[in-house]
Amino acid sequence: MIRVAVLGAGRIGKIHAANVKNCPGAKLVVVADPFGTNAKDLADKLGCEHTTDASQALARADVDAVVIGTPTDTHVTFLLEAVKLGKAVLCEKPIDLDMEKSLWAANEVKRLNGKVMLAFNRRFDPTSQAMRKAIDAGEVGAVRQVIISSRDPGMPPRDYVAHSGGIFRDMVIHDLDMARWLLGEEPTEVFAMASNLVDPTIEEFNDHDTVMLQLRTASGKQCHINCCREAVFGYDQRMEVFGSTGMLLQDNLRPSTIRRWTKDATDAREPLLNFFLERYQEAYANELQAFIRALQLNAPLPTTVDDGVQALRLAEAALRSVASGRFEKV
Amino acid sequence: MIRVAVLGAGRIGKIHAANVKNCPGAKLVVVADPFGTNAKDLADKLGCEHTTDASQALARADVDAVVIGTPTDTHVTFLLEAVKLGKAVLCEKPIDLDMEKSLWAANEVKRLNGKVMLAFNRRFDPTSQAMRKAIDAGEVGAVRQVIISSRDPGMPPRDYVAHSGGIFRDMVIHDLDMARWLLGEEPTEVFAMASNLVDPTIEEFNDHDTVMLQLRTASGKQCHINCCREAVFGYDQRMEVFGSTGMLLQDNLRPSTIRRWTKDATDAREPLLNFFLERYQEAYANELQAFIRALQLNAPLPTTVDDGVQALRLAEAALRSVASGRFEKV
Amino acid sequence: MIRVAVLGAGRIGKIHAANVKNCPGAKLVVVADPFGTNAKDLADKLGCEHTTDASQALARADVDAVVIGTPTDTHVTFLLEAVKLGKAVLCEKPIDLDMEKSLWAANEVKRLNGKVMLAFNRRFDPTSQAMRKAIDAGEVGAVRQVIISSRDPGMPPRDYVAHSGGIFRDMVIHDLDMARWLLGEEPTEVFAMASNLVDPTIEEFNDHDTVMLQLRTASGKQCHINCCREAVFGYDQRMEVFGSTGMLLQDNLRPSTIRRWTKDATDAREPLLNFFLERYQEAYANELQAFIRALQLNAPLPTTVDDGVQALRLAEAALRSVASGRFEKV
Amino acid sequence: MIRVAVLGAGRIGKIHAANVKNCPGAKLVVVADPFGTNAKDLADKLGCEHTTDASQALARADVDAVVIGTPTDTHVTFLLEAVKLGKAVLCEKPIDLDMEKSLWAANEVKRLNGKVMLAFNRRFDPTSQAMRKAIDAGEVGAVRQVIISSRDPGMPPRDYVAHSGGIFRDMVIHDLDMARWLLGEEPTEVFAMASNLVDPTIEEFNDHDTVMLQLRTASGKQCHINCCREAVFGYDQRMEVFGSTGMLLQDNLRPSTIRRWTKDATDAREPLLNFFLERYQEAYANELQAFIRALQLNAPLPTTVDDGVQALRLAEAALRSVASGRFEKV
Repeated sequence: MIRVAVLGAGRIGKIHAANVKNCPGAKLVVVADPFGTNAKDLADKLGCEHTTDASQALARADVDAVVIGTPTDTHVTFLLEAVKLGKAVLCEKPIDLDMEKSLWAANEVKRLNGKVMLAFNRRFDPTSQAMRKAIDAGEVGAVRQVIISSRDPGMPPRDYVAHSGGIFRDMVIHDLDMARWLLGEEPTEVFAMASNLVDPTIEEFNDHDTVMLQLRTASGKQCHINCCREAVFGYDQRMEVFGSTGMLLQDNLRPSTIRRWTKDATDAREPLLNFFLERYQEAYANELQAFIRALQLNAPLPTTVDDGVQALRLAEAALRSVASGRFEKV
Repeated sequence: MIRVAVLGAGRIGKIHAANVKNCPGAKLVVVADPFGTNAKDLADKLGCEHTTDASQALARADVDAVVIGTPTDTHVTFLLEAVKLGKAVLCEKPIDLDMEKSLWAANEVKRLNGKVMLAFNRRFDPTSQAMRKAIDAGEVGAVRQVIISSRDPGMPPRDYVAHSGGIFRDMVIHDLDMARWLLGEEPTEVFAMASNLVDPTIEEFNDHDTVMLQLRTASGKQCHINCCREAVFGYDQRMEVFGSTGMLLQDNLRPSTIRRWTKDATDAREPLLNFFLERYQEAYANELQAFIRALQLNAPLPTTVDDGVQALRLAEAALRSVASGRFEKV
Repeated sequence: MIRVAVLGAGRIGKIHAANVKNCPGAKLVVVADPFGTNAKDLADKLGCEHTTDASQALARADVDAVVIGTPTDTHVTFLLEAVKLGKAVLCEKPIDLDMEKSLWAANEVKRLNGKVMLAFNRRFDPTSQAMRKAIDAGEVGAVRQVIISSRDPGMPPRDYVAHSGGIFRDMVIHDLDMARWLLGEEPTEVFAMASNLVDPTIEEFNDHDTVMLQLRTASGKQCHINCCREAVFGYDQRMEVFGSTGMLLQDNLRPSTIRRWTKDATDAREPLLNFFLERYQEAYANELQAFIRALQLNAPLPTTVDDGVQALRLAEAALRSVASGRFEKV
Repeated sequence: MIRVAVLGAGRIGKIHAANVKNCPGAKLVVVADPFGTNAKDLADKLGCEHTTDASQALARADVDAVVIGTPTDTHVTFLLEAVKLGKAVLCEKPIDLDMEKSLWAANEVKRLNGKVMLAFNRRFDPTSQAMRKAIDAGEVGAVRQVIISSRDPGMPPRDYVAHSGGIFRDMVIHDLDMARWLLGEEPTEVFAMASNLVDPTIEEFNDHDTVMLQLRTASGKQCHINCCREAVFGYDQRMEVFGSTGMLLQDNLRPSTIRRWTKDATDAREPLLNFFLERYQEAYANELQAFIRALQLNAPLPTTVDDGVQALRLAEAALRSVASGRFEKV
């Protein structure tokens, strides 16, 4: 039985805590959150202990593994505290918004032989898993082009935008990880263009709401990513892997399979599941299970701090490309 | 070159004449219609001769084959005239609304060794052809159930209903032919139920607008047909063949492949092509080509008067079943 | 907090117990199963008590509600025991395979003012719920035809067939309930035909594996149901509601949304979710929640013993129809 | 009646000639091709005159309009000959592979007040038309992103590649025209990347087989195009227009609507229509009709030489971008 502490009782912490609770082979020991009521409410609901002191929670002798779902600027601190105590860690991405700090933390993890998994949840989505397995099984032959569409249902609050690190580090970073994972080869160059078509006032933060990227690997494989902070029909998450002998598509999810036929339209489906918590519900549960299973088997963790660093590197290159108008080396 | 006379310059005659004009190996010689202007207009458009006298047209020495697209009650007359003169015939269905007269005509055709093809256009639809070929290739294994949905876009004019012979002989007959063709085995029993849910006033003609049928073959294969005289989203034509190793579905056609996404619906497609002339445009052309090709090769015609008789027999059994509430033998 | 005992720790009992465990407002107190290990294993996993004595479990003072997931021939016994003790009941269908016993039990429940909900899980499927809501909202206008396709992934074991009560009482009964629910009007007549196309040896039990039904309501609304005990592509569950102003379709579920494109096929989706436990996972959870919510609000239960009786009545009429070849009154 | 000469009796000339023949208001007078047999065969089939001398054909007094379907390097010559004689022209694209010559020709056409329509056939595809109309009707609000996927079924012959002008001028140019047309605003900057993933030996011609582009307009609208010379599943032509209030998708066409279900896959559709002649059959006919209709009404032609020049300009900018690794101004 892997005994787990969950740090953070906010939106994502709640997801993780419930998944730990339902995960075979895992035991939820404690949840920590500086807002004591949040921690208590979640603990009461799931039947575990609670505290306002994350450092204390992760240090407990009866805790083997730590799930970090706290604000981004605390990730590195808790990550390294846990690693130094020999605890396994599942850490929300990004490691940090700052590249240097991220690199330093990644090196520390390696120096200390830390067991750290970065929470790239989308890789654990059933359809993404099916795509990866199909590629591995040779179904599409040699991958040539990957196309990723990724649009949020609506602009985040202005305050969130101000502290998000910008659309590339905050939002596109997920798609950059998927690009790496699906291409099966490291992108070496990035081109990006960025517009403000939803809310021009966020230019004030030097941020954008509508972007397109192109990536290329050393062998010439290509990837396109398009993102927008707002899509009226819901959280738009589609992917396409085109190869020498076939193609794989990933469609969106909807609340049900109902299709409506009227005099104006036929076969109309519902708007998409609203946002990532709904869309990737199953992915979050699978991610947690993969983490626990790897610990049980003492197997390599499916994602690492290096994955976190590399995705951030691609985001940084995209930002440089927006400024330079050039294809930027990673 | 097969030289062709087209009898009838109405809705269906126009289709046939244009298809003859465009068919490799065929030559449109003359169109005949008692309404002289109709015949002339069509002839002028397609560059052929015209006449008001159908009997004269079919008797011409420079005519090898006759396409009969005249009103139903004239089919038998022109059919037998043509056969007696040794002309090949493509005749619109039904042979006649009366069972006895149909049987007599079919026997005459056989006695005279006539070359007569009944125009069951749906069999020549590309998707229906693909289904039949897939069944023949063993793709679904042994056929178990066939499901046919067939709904018209709107009630025909009251006067049409009055002289149509009723929904079973006029509309369902097409689906009964598809049932025979897809089952690959003759239905031996029919059950039918009929309601008036669109226009109750047609009960006056002892007719119905909404019906469901079930058919069974000697070996126990099953078929369901559902029909309605009105569907607000257009001409609904779907089929399903379910077998021991697979299933085949036939979807509807739409004017384009556009799909619309809004805040209320995603992936919405257009309403269906309006009615049979649009939906089966390609089927009519293929049917004509199949007729001409069979004549050129002196090969058996793909459909026969017996097919016409058998479909009518099933329609009659359905009518009896509505009255008796019993599974009626064909 | 509604305190719940779950009777039966088999396939369906496990589902119910886990759903109680996860249901807000419910508390899983005890699971009972004559196979003590089954009960113990399930109780240990979910953290509740266990017993081999169902009667004792349902009688506990700290139990408010009972979920009955035991073999069919014990339903009536436990149902009435619970009702007499004033416990609310969620009972798996059917009430009993015998019509008279079912009627008697239903009357007893009513005489005793029992709170009993019959577990027609499909009504609680998200897509079925969306269809019912759309009908209620007038989206399709007046319902004209309902089409239900329902095929199991494979023949049940021979021994199961022998004691199942036959395909109509065991399998079609679910579709008959959906028919009633979607038509919104009681079917008054049933026609059924039945074949043995999968495994002819079950004729020995006077049972069939492939059936088709047609139902009609007093106002002339029509319903078709087709069922088969085997479909190679998985558990086939589709529905169609056709009305005066529109149509609603329900599609199947698959493990993921992946679509494959190769030189032989495009847009190919995965085989269907295997069987009812996978397909209706969400429906079972929703059903349990609806039960608990109704108890909390002291609201009418969404399904009743009368629904169970009525579905059985339709199944009996179908059986009579197979024998008589007639449209049978319900 | 608009009297038409068709220059070129090759693959595309045959299409145009047949469409003229079937176009209401048009009369096919003569087809010209230096290969006399080609011209004669086509003329015999369609019932018109023929010649090996294109200049003579276009100069005939009984010719009002000229359709140019000859090899690219002859376009400018015949175009200007026809314009100088006051004939209307429908000219296959591109005007010329050389930018300067194209510009000069375009200026000549304008100086001479020529009526010249460039044959951007895809704009006349029913789905593309439906998309343009939906955009014009405000269905998607303000356009934000356009995504175009465009893949050929297989590498063209080596000799074709050698003289094609390269993938950007030969293939991507169609997509660049669609981009301009759907964005509704001129792209001002282009970024392109190019790989050789299908046939590396064409690098010898300084050509590529797999490319991705990004375009931006002055107001920040974005467009992505991906192309490949080979797709095993057929001619892949998809488009997406994403806007502030909705999205429009264009799907591929297949020979039929059949969908196959087996134990390995469900809902599988057929491979795509093979190539542009099949895929855009209806578009070619609509294009010809639009040309004739505009002449009849003396209305502006729907596409102009400027459209041809502008698409070529974008292709040239893409080529420069591949070399520079920069976002290139158009």
